[in-house]
Amino acid sequence: MTHHARLAALRAELARAGLDGFVVPLTDEHMSEYVGGYAQRLGWLTGFGGSAGTAVVLGEAAAIFTDGRYTLQVREQVSADDWSYVAVPQDSVAGWLATHAPQGGRIGYDPWLHTSAWVADTATALAARDATLVPVAANPIDAVWTDRPAPSPARLTPHPDAQAGRSSAAKRADIADWLAANRADAVVLTALDSIAWVLNVRGSDVAHTPVALSYAIVGSDGTTDLFVAPDKVDDAVRQHLGNAVRLHDRDAFDGALRTHAGRRIAADPERAVAAIFDALAAGGATVLPLRDPAVLAKALKNPVEVAGHRAASLRDGAALSRFLRWVETEAVHGGQTELSAAARLLEFRQATGCLLDTSFDTISATGAHGASPHYHVTEQSNAPLVPGDLFLIDSGGQYADGTTDVTRVVPIGAPTAEMRDRFTRVLKGHIAIATAIVPDGTCGAQIDAFARRPLWEAGLDFAHGTGHGIGSYLSVHEGPQRIASPNYPGGASLEPLRAGMMLSNEPGYYKAGEYGIRIENLLLTVPVTVPGGDPDRQMLGFETLTFAPIERSLIDPSLLTPAERAWTDAYHADVLARIGPILAGEDHAWLVSKCAPLD
Amino acid sequence: MTHHARLAALRAELARAGLDGFVVPLTDEHMSEYVGGYAQRLGWLTGFGGSAGTAVVLGEAAAIFTDGRYTLQVREQVSADDWSYVAVPQDSVAGWLATHAPQGGRIGYDPWLHTSAWVADTATALAARDATLVPVAANPIDAVWTDRPAPSPARLTPHPDAQAGRSSAAKRADIADWLAANRADAVVLTALDSIAWVLNVRGSDVAHTPVALSYAIVGSDGTTDLFVAPDKVDDAVRQHLGNAVRLHDRDAFDGALRTHAGRRIAADPERAVAAIFDALAAGGATVLPLRDPAVLAKALKNPVEVAGHRAASLRDGAALSRFLRWVETEAVHGGQTELSAAARLLEFRQATGCLLDTSFDTISATGAHGASPHYHVTEQSNAPLVPGDLFLIDSGGQYADGTTDVTRVVPIGAPTAEMRDRFTRVLKGHIAIATAIVPDGTCGAQIDAFARRPLWEAGLDFAHGTGHGIGSYLSVHEGPQRIASPNYPGGASLEPLRAGMMLSNEPGYYKAGEYGIRIENLLLTVPVTVPGGDPDRQMLGFETLTFAPIERSLIDPSLLTPAERAWTDAYHADVLARIGPILAGEDHAWLVSKCAPLD
Repeated sequence: MTHHARLAALRAELARAGLDGFVVPLTDEHMSEYVGGYAQRLGWLTGFGGSAGTAVVLGEAAAIFTDGRYTLQVREQVSADDWSYVAVPQDSVAGWLATHAPQGGRIGYDPWLHTSAWVADTATALAARDATLVPVAANPIDAVWTDRPAPSPARLTPHPDAQAGRSSAAKRADIADWLAANRADAVVLTALDSIAWVLNVRGSDVAHTPVALSYAIVGSDGTTDLFVAPDKVDDAVRQHLGNAVRLHDRDAFDGALRTHAGRRIAADPERAVAAIFDALAAGGATVLPLRDPAVLAKALKNPVEVAGHRAASLRDGAALSRFLRWVETEAVHGGQTELSAAARLLEFRQATGCLLDTSFDTISATGAHGASPHYHVTEQSNAPLVPGDLFLIDSGGQYADGTTDVTRVVPIGAPTAEMRDRFTRVLKGHIAIATAIVPDGTCGAQIDAFARRPLWEAGLDFAHGTGHGIGSYLSVHEGPQRIASPNYPGGASLEPLRAGMMLSNEPGYYKAGEYGIRIENLLLTVPVTVPGGDPDRQMLGFETLTFAPIERSLIDPSLLTPAERAWTDAYHADVLARIGPILAGEDHAWLVSKCAPLD
Repeated sequence: MTHHARLAALRAELARAGLDGFVVPLTDEHMSEYVGGYAQRLGWLTGFGGSAGTAVVLGEAAAIFTDGRYTLQVREQVSADDWSYVAVPQDSVAGWLATHAPQGGRIGYDPWLHTSAWVADTATALAARDATLVPVAANPIDAVWTDRPAPSPARLTPHPDAQAGRSSAAKRADIADWLAANRADAVVLTALDSIAWVLNVRGSDVAHTPVALSYAIVGSDGTTDLFVAPDKVDDAVRQHLGNAVRLHDRDAFDGALRTHAGRRIAADPERAVAAIFDALAAGGATVLPLRDPAVLAKALKNPVEVAGHRAASLRDGAALSRFLRWVETEAVHGGQTELSAAARLLEFRQATGCLLDTSFDTISATGAHGASPHYHVTEQSNAPLVPGDLFLIDSGGQYADGTTDVTRVVPIGAPTAEMRDRFTRVLKGHIAIATAIVPDGTCGAQIDAFARRPLWEAGLDFAHGTGHGIGSYLSVHEGPQRIASPNYPGGASLEPLRAGMMLSNEPGYYKAGEYGIRIENLLLTVPVTVPGGDPDRQMLGFETLTFAPIERSLIDPSLLTPAERAWTDAYHADVLARIGPILAGEDHAWLVSKCAPLD
């Protein structure tokens, strides 16, 4: 079934349902960023393979909404014959509907896939055309998606306290305290990583993110109702969860929401879908729109999680270093492709004996493909690594003790002077973040431009955020904090930074049709005492957690300040000191040469 | 009548009116930042002399709410016996009322002095204590303020097109286009500087801000109803306004708002008070909450306004330079005070023959007073300039061709090494803003930290924004843009920067009890083409508009990068080239010595 035919089938189904249009987001019932195959409705309908986007289908028109990361990719993957491309946040679904929806039309949406705020905003926009936004009882795509994957049957696994650093009982006691402070009787948890974190369990229902499809309601005594398919829970997990966690079928969740008449129930308006708010209200509960209490608690890594990440990071950095040597010494001889390189990197990570999964689809992008920041290589797109290319590899591993995410760039052959200039500017931005010292509570939006200034000075920029949070054997993108411009969706860039948060530091530069550059390490936010500083002002700094050489042939030392050069040399000395002992023979000799001070 | 007695009188009046409390903001019916004497209710009640704050009076408790700029000042001016001090934005009036208002109480507010959003938020907060927020028909302070100043009788004056750069008719035609685009029949203008700008008139009802107390309603044909006291308008102004501007008494405004049944009327929810929205709604109008269309138009200076500012700036910089020489050569001999210095600076500005007013109360602050960023010298606080002090002077002039605002710091005697370190860090921050190149549409929140990084690295910071907009012979603080952290009230720091905007650049450092430092120049946002930059990306830079020497004895050149040193030397060469020709004799010789390259 071609994508053209799928669109036609959906339109026929909409006509049967009496709808003039339908909105197709890329999320699931948990507002997840990465979703299971059963929820990949946007990809099925349009062919789009990116991680963020929305489609709107009307009788004649159809539009796909993507952000700056996917400007190139959406045009390659989604047919311009059927779809028009709309850029967000410059435009929005609501704004587009306000000018394109048929006068007086009925536009459908699945209330399990949108927030209440989205529903309110979009309904208001449609009112300008006397059109209405109509919830559907069943998603019309599912009616025409004949080979839709079944929900994953994967089982839950315990995440031992020795790795979590804090028992589920202790975490649930904290939530009970939070409920008391908010005079709430219970909180509905819908974010899959929050549930996994609170209950110290993991799953494998979503590719690369070790979570299980489930809902939870935590009560004021800390006991919890967990809604999950029964055959996903074995005796070991049942015992790990204990008596304070009552198990229910996931299908019982909607009904359970309707049983809280007269009680005060908290739910997160950004993370719980409209259907949940609607069901709570229909059941007579007073709904408190509060942020999921696990969101911030999970972001503040405890010492056990930090130690676990350090171990995972060294293991992962050694594997990556072996791969970088392989690229430099083997791949340059020809015959390698984006896919074969990604496969080779996977082998190096698997050789650690600890890899449970990659933390996302490896971005193995050579030459012009690198200019698509979230390029996803397929058999169709697979390109050979050829001389003159910059080869960009953005990848990470899921280990029981931590989740990694790292990007390096290697030239296939000699880089041009422009490539070195751009790479060095990206490095200067990376160093500006790595060395920043900021007052406690400074938000990511305030420091994002530190990473951009060296590019801005050359009339250049990059169209993505500078850094995201990351989980502990959980989501590779984790909130609530972020380093990005202040208009980043969800306010993440306005979240105060606090000691214990982990963030990526990944400025880049992308030249359409030619190459992409990104240098990514993970950071730990740490308290800093500056001698002579204001004693009343707690400062924070960043400790770099990722260790692998940054390609020296791409660095133009003449563009670095003495302090930037000293940082680079000190970083490489640290890489050698930490990764060196794990490597042997030629790998070790190679690392020594890559970690020497800059010329 | 002591401030203690005033508080008691207000409480008695509240009791008579059946109120359990009252909220006293520092604004007028136009949401002005600076207000006429008749509206200085907060100052009359509490003694507070700062430019931003709010008081809440309950039966027993009374609290005054100020931001970080006034932490010291409020404690000096407002008695701790009667008042408790509350810091905003850490706390808020609404939050405080939610915990302090009497259960079931009635808290009064003047609907001509608050926005509808404030009313809604505060009413919600009070609901937590079953208390209600009650609009008063007459402000109870006015009933007990027996010697309240009468409204200013000052007349309007024409602001000629030759200085405005654009006729009022053309500006009103633009507003008519804006009304059509928003399907609105008229817009209510309440911001005094918007009205002055749209009609090309000026006034003198508010100290230092050349505006007249008035309201305006601009219709879809560009004709305008202006509500202003009749004896403020003479024939010259009447002729300047023309037939398209209909004059009404200011007292007729409330009634006029109630005559728009069935029409779509725009009003700015940040700039028009709750009473206006209430009156429009009561009269049957559909109210469109849209930003005042003059706000952005006024911020984008036209070439005539820019040329006017350049002329004003040179004249003003020469006067300031003469003053700085006077401080360095005369005031150091003793016998001078903050007041005598401010008076001397005024004489130098008056000697230009063009000064119409200062653009705000001069901040003449020596020693520890400088640590209060908005210190206001009085006969009581007046301190002598003594050796060891840093003397901070923040001042500006109102000229028919432009409004200036500039801050310099001069040591009385030899500065300490710490003072030089701090001053140099502030200078580095100042240079980081002055030399920034940013993509068109970058907002002030994104670059604010450029000004702070050199202080952050030393464990220091400053508790105010980095820059504000400024008017053309109008308000010294003008929106909508600002360089500040993203949580700056009103979203000003999130306003995209555009070519033609003017901004101050004024990082500082304040050591409580010892000294204050601030270096302030004005900037013009200009388009920049960077050779080799992305041709699709319009970049902006900043052109410094203010010329006066930055005290070299306070600069530690060893802390400057080569680029920062080059900027400083180039700036001083520019000061000499532009201001030098205006100065004569010893003033000129002094300027030559102050503008030499750094040692």
